[in-house]
Amino acid sequence: MARHIMTLTCDDRPGIVAAVSGALLQVQANIVENQQFSDEDTALFFMRTVFDAEADDVETVLAAVRESPAVAHQHLAVRPADEHCRTIILVSKFDHCLLDLLYRWKSGDLPIDIVGVVSNHEDCRALVEYYGLPFTVIPVTAETKADAEAELLRMVDANDVGLVVLARYMQILSDSLCRALEGRAINIHHSFLPGFKGAKPYHQAHDRGVKLIGASAHYVTADLDEGPIIEQDVVRVTHAETPARLVALGRDVERRVLSRAVRDHAESRVFLSGRRTIVF
Amino acid sequence: MARHIMTLTCDDRPGIVAAVSGALLQVQANIVENQQFSDEDTALFFMRTVFDAEADDVETVLAAVRESPAVAHQHLAVRPADEHCRTIILVSKFDHCLLDLLYRWKSGDLPIDIVGVVSNHEDCRALVEYYGLPFTVIPVTAETKADAEAELLRMVDANDVGLVVLARYMQILSDSLCRALEGRAINIHHSFLPGFKGAKPYHQAHDRGVKLIGASAHYVTADLDEGPIIEQDVVRVTHAETPARLVALGRDVERRVLSRAVRDHAESRVFLSGRRTIVF
Amino acid sequence: MARHIMTLTCDDRPGIVAAVSGALLQVQANIVENQQFSDEDTALFFMRTVFDAEADDVETVLAAVRESPAVAHQHLAVRPADEHCRTIILVSKFDHCLLDLLYRWKSGDLPIDIVGVVSNHEDCRALVEYYGLPFTVIPVTAETKADAEAELLRMVDANDVGLVVLARYMQILSDSLCRALEGRAINIHHSFLPGFKGAKPYHQAHDRGVKLIGASAHYVTADLDEGPIIEQDVVRVTHAETPARLVALGRDVERRVLSRAVRDHAESRVFLSGRRTIVF
Amino acid sequence: MARHIMTLTCDDRPGIVAAVSGALLQVQANIVENQQFSDEDTALFFMRTVFDAEADDVETVLAAVRESPAVAHQHLAVRPADEHCRTIILVSKFDHCLLDLLYRWKSGDLPIDIVGVVSNHEDCRALVEYYGLPFTVIPVTAETKADAEAELLRMVDANDVGLVVLARYMQILSDSLCRALEGRAINIHHSFLPGFKGAKPYHQAHDRGVKLIGASAHYVTADLDEGPIIEQDVVRVTHAETPARLVALGRDVERRVLSRAVRDHAESRVFLSGRRTIVF
Repeated sequence: MARHIMTLTCDDRPGIVAAVSGALLQVQANIVENQQFSDEDTALFFMRTVFDAEADDVETVLAAVRESPAVAHQHLAVRPADEHCRTIILVSKFDHCLLDLLYRWKSGDLPIDIVGVVSNHEDCRALVEYYGLPFTVIPVTAETKADAEAELLRMVDANDVGLVVLARYMQILSDSLCRALEGRAINIHHSFLPGFKGAKPYHQAHDRGVKLIGASAHYVTADLDEGPIIEQDVVRVTHAETPARLVALGRDVERRVLSRAVRDHAESRVFLSGRRTIVF
Repeated sequence: MARHIMTLTCDDRPGIVAAVSGALLQVQANIVENQQFSDEDTALFFMRTVFDAEADDVETVLAAVRESPAVAHQHLAVRPADEHCRTIILVSKFDHCLLDLLYRWKSGDLPIDIVGVVSNHEDCRALVEYYGLPFTVIPVTAETKADAEAELLRMVDANDVGLVVLARYMQILSDSLCRALEGRAINIHHSFLPGFKGAKPYHQAHDRGVKLIGASAHYVTADLDEGPIIEQDVVRVTHAETPARLVALGRDVERRVLSRAVRDHAESRVFLSGRRTIVF
Repeated sequence: MARHIMTLTCDDRPGIVAAVSGALLQVQANIVENQQFSDEDTALFFMRTVFDAEADDVETVLAAVRESPAVAHQHLAVRPADEHCRTIILVSKFDHCLLDLLYRWKSGDLPIDIVGVVSNHEDCRALVEYYGLPFTVIPVTAETKADAEAELLRMVDANDVGLVVLARYMQILSDSLCRALEGRAINIHHSFLPGFKGAKPYHQAHDRGVKLIGASAHYVTADLDEGPIIEQDVVRVTHAETPARLVALGRDVERRVLSRAVRDHAESRVFLSGRRTIVF
Repeated sequence: MARHIMTLTCDDRPGIVAAVSGALLQVQANIVENQQFSDEDTALFFMRTVFDAEADDVETVLAAVRESPAVAHQHLAVRPADEHCRTIILVSKFDHCLLDLLYRWKSGDLPIDIVGVVSNHEDCRALVEYYGLPFTVIPVTAETKADAEAELLRMVDANDVGLVVLARYMQILSDSLCRALEGRAINIHHSFLPGFKGAKPYHQAHDRGVKLIGASAHYVTADLDEGPIIEQDVVRVTHAETPARLVALGRDVERRVLSRAVRDHAESRVFLSGRRTIVF
């Protein structure tokens, strides 16, 4: 028997759990973990089920669930639990998020396979190569942006990539690329209470004397920095912190929050429900 | 249709979820929320299911689950979701935890009905009566301890009490009372890293220069302060805090942790699995 | 010898600490605690010194500091360390912040003397009177607003009030009242990452799927909810929280943050430096 | 003018601040930052002063403070603020703390100069050499332990090392080495509430169902894992975490806590006061 993860999004109506658990029981699968949520706002039902079953039986389970009248307008998937999410990391010059991802991947903390690291700059080559991974530079200028994005998308498609991580990638993705990567591209950015618009946000936060600085990881959408939030965290600061120190503390929060979001995505724990996420 | 909460503990084997969800579907009940966990250490399965169903159908559901061959050695219960947990609060002189519970109960934050507050001292009478609740003093001395505990147990039994909260009750319960209240008496005490044995723990913590002080809420067992932990939290402190200030900060953590544990218990979220708890 | 707290704000230049410590040494005062900060943005110097001295000698110390050429454009004050800050609490209908302040005051946790509680509604009368404090209702309508504020200001002046706490007081203060209370009126409000404009912020936060909700305590200024921040904190939430539950969790953060800000102010730990605060 | 950090520990008596600030004023030094604390338990006074002064004048300042009758039994030091603390890192096989230190050092986040990394195993060589630092293997067996420690101590002495970091170094230092490194060797270890004695602490924590796991950084003393605590932190866990996952989460806390402690030490913020630390 092998461990599998099933994810299901569908209309919320009676009988879904019975349909799924019945289909699993039919092949003598054992449910190890199960989480579900009914979102009253969107009238959608979300389910993540970890089960042990013969690999040959999985298609039978899927067919049974798909054909159940209880499971309407479904988005249904099953993957082996030990299958790693194929991942491309985008980075520019700041390497704090990149290193954290590489280290956790190497330690076996993150269930991802890193297909490669793509950057618009040379800066992170040595680090990426130290970790034995391919490093591809795709420079981006106003003129080459469309081509650069096309090349990235080719890499995504050719490698069956399930996750693109913008690990402090300082280029704005075009609307069409955002759509092409919907639900599988994660960005990280600083967050403050209150929020600050415009340039030098850490300087603004310093001028305003905030006592907390934070970061949010979210799915990329065409609406810049406004995609569905996956994870957030903050760190306490005082008046004595300089803007430079705030930036350094911000790096710590950013890398921590991004790594958690990547793990959640790679473990198939994150579901989209309108403008927000369900994270099991 | 009325909302219900079903809790189930049984041997972990295939078919449990199918049995439960099948029984619910049979009466056209709708599952609103569902959490489950298989504890590999104890080989036990835990499930908490919130569902909407006709009140008349609940007995049918219970019977179907009980008779399922998949559900062995079960502990199964269903309650209306809006049914409040009948609760007795024990207190001595410190009133910080008591007030927090009373305030949250009054605000509708805690789904409990407070049958009464019992104390071995008069100190908290005015506070309890301000909240319109009965206050009973049962003094405890070495000679009267057995009688006092018997009286408390009579109150518990006579009022169908599902939860006894030791809100800084400074008497050690006898082994037999601990057993009689197993799984439905919650205590709160300070916790430190590292732990400190003996008297004046906050002074010891101060002498040792700890940077965090904490509190743990746990089920009462005969093994003093070592029952299954339900909730824990900490607060940061510095060298500048006096022992008295540590005690004051400790009060804050204690009341916060205890109220969360009481809520979890009252919402039927806490399950016992050997020496530890499963909290959904 | 009695313990005193000296607070000093002045232009940042060499010799300030020598002037202050010299003046204190002259009367054989003993410095117990000392914190200082030079704000490079505003070129201001801030100092909070706790010292033990004969009460008769304090005026000598003040005179010496005042006359020192090193201490220019000073704002200098000394108070007995055990002198409580005379405080008026404003409240409307929500009583969670009010109760937390009253309880901490009663426990000796907050060094304030509560002159009275003022409200535009009757709702909190019983609670305030339980704590043995005067409760004054000053209704506010568009027509009576100016009179109501004048009455409040008379109470502030007549009672030598050093702190007005807006403990969920749901009236917007006029610009002139804000100016009259500058640096001694503290407000609390919810804070999110990102921030939300407009009505029902907790519903907006829910729709947006935030993973943290927070609160900020700040000095009241004419610029609504944008005064210098004194304290902030957050609490983690998940997709499963309803808007109503977010509001309840928000209450917890609000009361915690407000009480900390009140304590900091009452212990003379908060200094204004332009749009931000220095908190020792 | 250059920025300097002065640290002073002495008997607590009147006139110390006046002596120091007077000495600084004499050479027209400007105090940028100043923190002090009087420990009533040990009757000791602690002070950390950051000031700008001509380098030539520093000896004058030191002499004036040393000769002041107010400053008895002093431990007095001044260093340029931009002088980095010369550091040796000890490591065995686990590299999570090591990498975090190396990364922060490389980013300019930690004001240390890493003289070298010493290990009793080969495992971390590639990582250390990637960062361009010398890696020395000193194997330790029961027979060679004394020699190994002597060699380490020679490295410490020869390189004027101000800090030895045990970044998950799995050897117990001898009492004499602990004494030789007193106040300049920092260790990190896991911490729980309650504490667990004996082997496999994360498994014990799992069995006990703790809801928080933590780490403590402390100065090394002959009393194993009981030295003065510099920094602590925790992370929340649930029943669903396996022991392996607890270990992974523990790594995160360990590296965060150790890096903060190293920074505090390297910025001369940590003072010893009996069994505890003062951290400014």
